[in-house]
Amino acid sequence: MSDYHAPLSDMAFVLDEIADIDRLAQLSAFADAGLDALPDVLAEAGRFFAEVIAPTNRTGDLEGSVRNPDGSVTTPDGFLEAYRHYVDAGWGAMAFDPEYGGGGFPWVVGIAITEMLTAANMALSLNPMLTQGSIHALTAHGSDVQKARWLPKLISGEWSGTMNLTEPQAGSDVGALTTRAVPQPDGSYLLSGQKIFITWGEHDLTDNIVHLVLARTPDAPAGTRGISLFIVPKHLVEPDGSLGARNDVHCVSLEHKMGIHASPTCVLQFGENGGAVGYRIGDEHAGMRYMFTMMNQARLAVGLEGLAVAERSYQQARAYARDRRQGRRDDTPAGESAPIVEHPDVRRMLVTMKAQIEALRCLVYLNAVAIDRARWSSDEGERRRNQELTDLLTPLSKAWGTDLGNEITSLAVQVHGGMGYIEETGVAQHFRDIRIAAIYEGTNGIQAIDLVGRKLAMRDGAVIEELIGEMGLTVRALVEADLGEMADRLEAAAADARAASRWLLQRGGGGSDDGLAGATPYLRLLATTVGGWLLAKSALAAQRRLAEGASGPDREFLEAKLATARFYAGQILPQVQGLLPSVMAGAAPLYAVGLD
Amino acid sequence: MSDYHAPLSDMAFVLDEIADIDRLAQLSAFADAGLDALPDVLAEAGRFFAEVIAPTNRTGDLEGSVRNPDGSVTTPDGFLEAYRHYVDAGWGAMAFDPEYGGGGFPWVVGIAITEMLTAANMALSLNPMLTQGSIHALTAHGSDVQKARWLPKLISGEWSGTMNLTEPQAGSDVGALTTRAVPQPDGSYLLSGQKIFITWGEHDLTDNIVHLVLARTPDAPAGTRGISLFIVPKHLVEPDGSLGARNDVHCVSLEHKMGIHASPTCVLQFGENGGAVGYRIGDEHAGMRYMFTMMNQARLAVGLEGLAVAERSYQQARAYARDRRQGRRDDTPAGESAPIVEHPDVRRMLVTMKAQIEALRCLVYLNAVAIDRARWSSDEGERRRNQELTDLLTPLSKAWGTDLGNEITSLAVQVHGGMGYIEETGVAQHFRDIRIAAIYEGTNGIQAIDLVGRKLAMRDGAVIEELIGEMGLTVRALVEADLGEMADRLEAAAADARAASRWLLQRGGGGSDDGLAGATPYLRLLATTVGGWLLAKSALAAQRRLAEGASGPDREFLEAKLATARFYAGQILPQVQGLLPSVMAGAAPLYAVGLD
Repeated sequence: MSDYHAPLSDMAFVLDEIADIDRLAQLSAFADAGLDALPDVLAEAGRFFAEVIAPTNRTGDLEGSVRNPDGSVTTPDGFLEAYRHYVDAGWGAMAFDPEYGGGGFPWVVGIAITEMLTAANMALSLNPMLTQGSIHALTAHGSDVQKARWLPKLISGEWSGTMNLTEPQAGSDVGALTTRAVPQPDGSYLLSGQKIFITWGEHDLTDNIVHLVLARTPDAPAGTRGISLFIVPKHLVEPDGSLGARNDVHCVSLEHKMGIHASPTCVLQFGENGGAVGYRIGDEHAGMRYMFTMMNQARLAVGLEGLAVAERSYQQARAYARDRRQGRRDDTPAGESAPIVEHPDVRRMLVTMKAQIEALRCLVYLNAVAIDRARWSSDEGERRRNQELTDLLTPLSKAWGTDLGNEITSLAVQVHGGMGYIEETGVAQHFRDIRIAAIYEGTNGIQAIDLVGRKLAMRDGAVIEELIGEMGLTVRALVEADLGEMADRLEAAAADARAASRWLLQRGGGGSDDGLAGATPYLRLLATTVGGWLLAKSALAAQRRLAEGASGPDREFLEAKLATARFYAGQILPQVQGLLPSVMAGAAPLYAVGLD
Repeated sequence: MSDYHAPLSDMAFVLDEIADIDRLAQLSAFADAGLDALPDVLAEAGRFFAEVIAPTNRTGDLEGSVRNPDGSVTTPDGFLEAYRHYVDAGWGAMAFDPEYGGGGFPWVVGIAITEMLTAANMALSLNPMLTQGSIHALTAHGSDVQKARWLPKLISGEWSGTMNLTEPQAGSDVGALTTRAVPQPDGSYLLSGQKIFITWGEHDLTDNIVHLVLARTPDAPAGTRGISLFIVPKHLVEPDGSLGARNDVHCVSLEHKMGIHASPTCVLQFGENGGAVGYRIGDEHAGMRYMFTMMNQARLAVGLEGLAVAERSYQQARAYARDRRQGRRDDTPAGESAPIVEHPDVRRMLVTMKAQIEALRCLVYLNAVAIDRARWSSDEGERRRNQELTDLLTPLSKAWGTDLGNEITSLAVQVHGGMGYIEETGVAQHFRDIRIAAIYEGTNGIQAIDLVGRKLAMRDGAVIEELIGEMGLTVRALVEADLGEMADRLEAAAADARAASRWLLQRGGGGSDDGLAGATPYLRLLATTVGGWLLAKSALAAQRRLAEGASGPDREFLEAKLATARFYAGQILPQVQGLLPSVMAGAAPLYAVGLD
């Protein structure tokens, strides 16, 4: 078991220097949010998630959620109490609309809070995460009556939400789904069909569960154009808001998974007894479009899981490496052993973890604040630019974040040596838990295809060109700040990113096999470069603050930030050039190898 | 659950073209081994491990080995029967000395057979692997009496062996161990102490277990120079060879591990009741040296685990990708979906797995045949050169093999999408099982330190220079064979490998912090280059065979081999240049980052 300490210093630094939260706070949308108190809010959140939620993580892994013969699902010991504390404290409501009981905070603050929740207990965090998805869908596309009925209790966390897309034959290919929704005289629908991989599809934490379900109305066109979106509550809700009859949707089994054991992954059967009552959201056949509008936030949330679990595993590995003594260093007193954190090879693992985590935090928080600006900026041009930035960064956050989640938790296991493989140590759980994140909410391959397809094509490549152009400004600032080596490394990576982008665009992007073949290495290349750019900006800010006379622990933090950025620039950014040939190799080499 | 099919075509190709088994067969040591029948032997082994052993893998994971209240350990259902078939068929004995009942086959053949055993059931394979280690130690350092007593039943597999090094405070730092061995008037010793992480330390598969134990005699010097090696059998053996009294060594607990659940990882208590009877092997205080002589084979065996489990997970992912249909390709018939193996991004994952597996098989088999030649060649110079090659390649096989094992099994999970995370699918087990291999038998960090230390220093760098020099000959042959792009890529990687080696040597190799700081990226760089070199040699051989008129399935295999080598050269070898800056960055950047 490991303690978790919310990385408040780094969160504050990234919120200030990368997300520019002071400028965000000036938007009228956040005038009443009380952002002045943000440091206190984050400190209190850090305390809450470390003390109340983090201790449930290991119990959750050992006990798991269990389906009972009657179809109900019992969560692990302590989850109900922990979740109620979470709801009572209002953490889930913070970044939502005050009109429905939310706290009116920016999304980037919600992301910071969710990072702590997820690091404390990833399996539990998926419940609020799915609820957030439901809130976003209803907020964007629900009628006023639907919003009034469902939003307040979803935002408070009294009820939870789920997303029902996948069916056995319809995974990445959502358009292949067959669940049916038949209209009834009263305007409702009766749904029937089976959905799989439904996260927190049944559980005992809330009185009601609001399932959002993709289904086909009779005579709907084939594929994604014939899909509509429905609200299907576990319990119907009476006009006075009280809970009514049990709806015809039931958990028929739970999956046995490698990790996130406490998160019940359900097979849900709709309409075994005549049909599950559902209420259509928005227009018929517009379900896929509605899903896309909430996809950015859901994918960012999954990328955040990579960051959060990586951070927790890093903290555990660092603590172990300080404590565990093996072998000697030149300055080890006679008869003693040195803490392994002092050995260069162990240090390389820890610094690699730290550097990538901090780069990733920059990316994820920048992505989140772009969502805020795209929605709330007073200037239309700024809203548009930030929507483009959101669209571009989201696949990077999701895929790079979760790939790094896998890599960093694996390094954390490695730092522990043999103890890392023993379940009681706890670090193996992080490695198992996070492995799902590269798969769900669109596999990382799907993210890469989205990047070389829709995202590269935005304004015919100009959105990416402009982002890379901004890196050029940072390069100039680095030279002026006497950070010449960092400038050289960033300039080289940016040049490779530009060459890769142009080559892919010329080959037709996601519309061509050559583009698709290069998608995954391209995403890695671009994300690694963006991470290097954001850490370079961090280095400039750290140097500025040091020059302004920071002292004490703040000074140590800033010096470490500068050294971490140097490490990333010198030793991680160069990996970009090793990826370039793969991006530009085209599809032919892949099909030349027979796989039959 | 997945079928396993022994990759007999690739094994035969690597044995022929990389291990040059025909030339090996001419050595007098193998005159009577019957190597003419090798293809039949391997085919029979493939059938046996696929049909008899592979089906036990999932059961073993689910049930695990269990310690009973009396300290005995019960293996999973089916293991005893499967193991007895293995012993009866003589598979474990094949590559050992005929004088003690072995088959007299070369070690490289033993490696090929062990690859199949390990792919079929890694947890079970660890039992024979540890037995092999005991056989090697006894063969090299035991007295004639000891050999006669212990070797025949270890070689047959009627008894198993274990290696007892680790203690709670002595992991990577073996010299810190404290288990005591007190001499008795009859020449035996009484041992007392606790050993942890003892693989197959107690079980029900064999009548006796032969523990090899590192311990300190009274007044022994501190550190590694005061360690001696002892035989401590579970049951004493009477002069007539029958089993005598139970010895004072007991399994006091089993670890709960992330994987290899069927392999009992024991805490062994020696001497709770007066002392465990032990017999010293060889000289007092020479235990560490004896361990080193068997270390190459043990480490190669662990690298082989990476290869074997990667191969099995690849087969499972490829089968799934051929079967699973999602989305469409240009030529997909109307109303149908395409097998995902046809999508470029899935194909990239599979071809990446295939290319690295085949490169790794070349390395591991070359490493094994170097062991054979170092021992059996008639020419002293060839023996010496092959011992050097063995010493150099072993850390690459161990660390690169197990790193790739982690990466490739993770790709196999990814190819399966959501199903990969469900335990019933079986691929998650491979991912969990192989994670230990980068840790035990010397962590991969220890391997890298060995490489930049002892191995780089051999003949002051000349051993590595000569290996890289051989790559130059291959480059010339590639140019002549019209494989110019492959030549260019190999030449560039070899140049980087040379530059990295020289820089590290100049900085003092493993004796300096700069050398130690570059160790891990250097190992990856060198291994990736060696893999590219061996696949380039494979490409030349494939081209030659194709020109000689190969036809049918053989032709398809050779064309795939050529294309696979092209893919590796074009898309994996370039990663080498991305690693070079890390190798040559020195230690200062690692210590500039505060980790307190």
